[in-house]
Amino acid sequence: MVLREGDLAVVWIDPKRVYLVRLEKGKKLDTDRGSLPFDNVIGREYGDFVEISKGRAFIMYPSLDYIYDGLHRPSQVLYPKDIGYMIFKSGIRPGDTVVEAGTGSGFLTISLSHFLGPSGKVISYDVREDMQERARKNLELVGLLDRVELKLGDVRENIDEVNVDAVFLDMPDPWLATETVYKALKPSGSVVVFVPTVGQIEKTFLSLRKNGFVDVEAVELILREYQVKENATRPRSIGVTHTGFIITGRKSIKGSSEIGE
Amino acid sequence: MVLREGDLAVVWIDPKRVYLVRLEKGKKLDTDRGSLPFDNVIGREYGDFVEISKGRAFIMYPSLDYIYDGLHRPSQVLYPKDIGYMIFKSGIRPGDTVVEAGTGSGFLTISLSHFLGPSGKVISYDVREDMQERARKNLELVGLLDRVELKLGDVRENIDEVNVDAVFLDMPDPWLATETVYKALKPSGSVVVFVPTVGQIEKTFLSLRKNGFVDVEAVELILREYQVKENATRPRSIGVTHTGFIITGRKSIKGSSEIGE
Amino acid sequence: MVLREGDLAVVWIDPKRVYLVRLEKGKKLDTDRGSLPFDNVIGREYGDFVEISKGRAFIMYPSLDYIYDGLHRPSQVLYPKDIGYMIFKSGIRPGDTVVEAGTGSGFLTISLSHFLGPSGKVISYDVREDMQERARKNLELVGLLDRVELKLGDVRENIDEVNVDAVFLDMPDPWLATETVYKALKPSGSVVVFVPTVGQIEKTFLSLRKNGFVDVEAVELILREYQVKENATRPRSIGVTHTGFIITGRKSIKGSSEIGE
Amino acid sequence: MVLREGDLAVVWIDPKRVYLVRLEKGKKLDTDRGSLPFDNVIGREYGDFVEISKGRAFIMYPSLDYIYDGLHRPSQVLYPKDIGYMIFKSGIRPGDTVVEAGTGSGFLTISLSHFLGPSGKVISYDVREDMQERARKNLELVGLLDRVELKLGDVRENIDEVNVDAVFLDMPDPWLATETVYKALKPSGSVVVFVPTVGQIEKTFLSLRKNGFVDVEAVELILREYQVKENATRPRSIGVTHTGFIITGRKSIKGSSEIGE
Repeated sequence: MVLREGDLAVVWIDPKRVYLVRLEKGKKLDTDRGSLPFDNVIGREYGDFVEISKGRAFIMYPSLDYIYDGLHRPSQVLYPKDIGYMIFKSGIRPGDTVVEAGTGSGFLTISLSHFLGPSGKVISYDVREDMQERARKNLELVGLLDRVELKLGDVRENIDEVNVDAVFLDMPDPWLATETVYKALKPSGSVVVFVPTVGQIEKTFLSLRKNGFVDVEAVELILREYQVKENATRPRSIGVTHTGFIITGRKSIKGSSEIGE
Repeated sequence: MVLREGDLAVVWIDPKRVYLVRLEKGKKLDTDRGSLPFDNVIGREYGDFVEISKGRAFIMYPSLDYIYDGLHRPSQVLYPKDIGYMIFKSGIRPGDTVVEAGTGSGFLTISLSHFLGPSGKVISYDVREDMQERARKNLELVGLLDRVELKLGDVRENIDEVNVDAVFLDMPDPWLATETVYKALKPSGSVVVFVPTVGQIEKTFLSLRKNGFVDVEAVELILREYQVKENATRPRSIGVTHTGFIITGRKSIKGSSEIGE
Repeated sequence: MVLREGDLAVVWIDPKRVYLVRLEKGKKLDTDRGSLPFDNVIGREYGDFVEISKGRAFIMYPSLDYIYDGLHRPSQVLYPKDIGYMIFKSGIRPGDTVVEAGTGSGFLTISLSHFLGPSGKVISYDVREDMQERARKNLELVGLLDRVELKLGDVRENIDEVNVDAVFLDMPDPWLATETVYKALKPSGSVVVFVPTVGQIEKTFLSLRKNGFVDVEAVELILREYQVKENATRPRSIGVTHTGFIITGRKSIKGSSEIGE
Repeated sequence: MVLREGDLAVVWIDPKRVYLVRLEKGKKLDTDRGSLPFDNVIGREYGDFVEISKGRAFIMYPSLDYIYDGLHRPSQVLYPKDIGYMIFKSGIRPGDTVVEAGTGSGFLTISLSHFLGPSGKVISYDVREDMQERARKNLELVGLLDRVELKLGDVRENIDEVNVDAVFLDMPDPWLATETVYKALKPSGSVVVFVPTVGQIEKTFLSLRKNGFVDVEAVELILREYQVKENATRPRSIGVTHTGFIITGRKSIKGSSEIGE
């Protein structure tokens, strides 16, 4: 597939230099490894590379993982390891309808709408308008805005939707939203919560158990990266040691807080 | 949604007692917690529960994570933590075409076809016919066989398909398949490999780098489960400490083994 | 060194079959791998082996790590990984005086008196007389009782000693003992606390900071065991995933709760 | 204890600013947090603090863990977590004789001689004279040189000593030293090896098993640090993710390579 003006592309120089760009004639990408005029990219194909002053830049298809790398900001704590697990555990599939809060920078929103496909729907709540504007721009850039409804609102007070397939929470006090989440979900639907601190695990878990959720689990994923060299392969010495904890559960018909593990 | 004869359902008693069943009148599920006649389930809804002799059984929607629990066998090493990450990193999306080897018990096949949706396609190779028969039964049970093509064959020798979006390898010597995988992939397409031992990391990684793949990474995911009790929350004492390592890469146009990290 | 009647020895059959015994003529050790008459051991040397019905039993010197294996009971949570770190971080050395609470089964007591040597001293408090009797027997068995003073008492209320080099706490509510520990320690002396749950980390840490301790740190050690086979080396699949958390600090002269990290 | 000229002290400002100094009148320590004239320290006590331009400096007793912090250089990979475990597993105790190779910067040498006490002995081999000179200076500084014998030599070729209690190896190819180590050890004595890469685990482990060692184990320790704040406690986000692997074993009389796990 030949790249044309207006196409979205990922410029991959190395794992720490990944850029998501829209190709425009006469424009360029500036990096500390050199400059990349988009005129040199237009007419090439995904998978191809272009020489830059300090090495080579690969032009990659804007798949989800590269969108993540391209949009990722240091303040974010949701990592691919967490998102992949959260989506798997939620049981969602193409075509499902999902509620999310808060929107944040919109990266989980992007991931959810990616996996739900064109027939799926994400309704994303946030109490901050500025965050939603930022997310709107990101969604627009990657062409997924039509699968998403951004709502300014507080899920602790109300969720408009009912019978949704899953609810994802990435907010400071998810235990205050377990009742509204229960009402919004279809029976057997799943709730998936991400929290960064140890104290939030217990509050969220116990609140879910008290409010009609079963199969409640709390886990953490630790990612180890390996540095591979011939006869010298080893786990990397320095890296991310913590992002957060994931708590999941299922809506049962009729509360059943006494269900043990 | 009222459950009828012929419907697929998950019977969830506790995290270690999860059963995937097709509801048939007059039949029942026997467990060490008691017997569950399906006649007591037909007419109920997903999310509902039925009393059994030692507690309660929840009737859950057969979503992917429960299918996993229901089909999971001790010999398997691919866990939700690994599958979620592999799918995220692959960048695949609904409608894509994916090659997989080996088929094994078919659980990764099920996960892939689940996320690719009805317009997606999985071509799954295995050298063992008995494994593919087992996988075929599992795929039939969960209604996903029409999205999958099972092929008896050795991907180290040949992959029929070209221009596929991603290739997933879970086989003893994936480094012997990097050339055929390169040919099968579309440019910028991704390869995702799962291996259980430390020696396989290096061989796979270096073989990918030598054969035209860039952005090659090797990681491992460690899952910690938390045991939550009021004022006594802690990581679980005993559990799974290792499953395997995941190596990922992207096909570049023209080999570029010299691309550094 | 030829083994004689009355000598202490470790019988090592495999990592899960390690026995601490005192050699007595006419007696024997019974295991599920066979019986070992001590008459067959007397006259041998440490490092030697004796055939038993299902394999071989190695006769080992009763060094600290084997004493640990030999005395270890499933209920214990202090593991070598934790004890080694705790002793290192405490800064103690041969000849020091150390206070410990609670005594428990006496294994930390044994480790401390081992490293403090014949000129060192451990004062070990416990509120339960039965635990101290058990510990006394263990200390007698390994010949370290003369380095230890067992005291029935509650360190939350009082510690008799002053100017001690370090205090080790393995008790349910160590935050209630931080004031008495402060009084007992010499300036610059260290406190080392072991707790199993996440909620205890914060309480202990903040209480130490409020009561004149500086350089307060909280850590956890995760041990991974490797299963080594030619071309198939990998981390072990199942194992211990959690024991506890270690909080350490130093007594400063004059309280300094406001000292940041 | 009043501090005098010539005393060794640790200046602790925060966990990343720990300095080991010998107090000399008229001299001072310069840090990015301010300058500390030693005249302000002489006459104080360990545990006391001195105001500096940006905060406070605590004057601490030069215990082993602070010596570690004070001497630690980025290139080192042996961490307290590893050293504590290695010493525990070795079973050494005050008064023992231990061989070590290589000397490196001498930090393991310091730790060993610390725990062996004044009646213990460390013989430390290295093939590089410059490393031994650096170690000699460190040992002199902390007053432990009289417990250590530094030898220029290659343990793969020869170890002069016999009947030693334990041997510690931190060298690139420890599997080439297993025969000389076997000869140097007393029966039932222990060997403790530290290696950074995954390929070294297997080579070392299998070489020990082939050369008469039993109870051979390979482990890795992962340290997680916690960041404690009221209601916001969590594992630290970024940190050390790998140092190395520890392989331990015991000398048996007569080789027994066939001893299973």
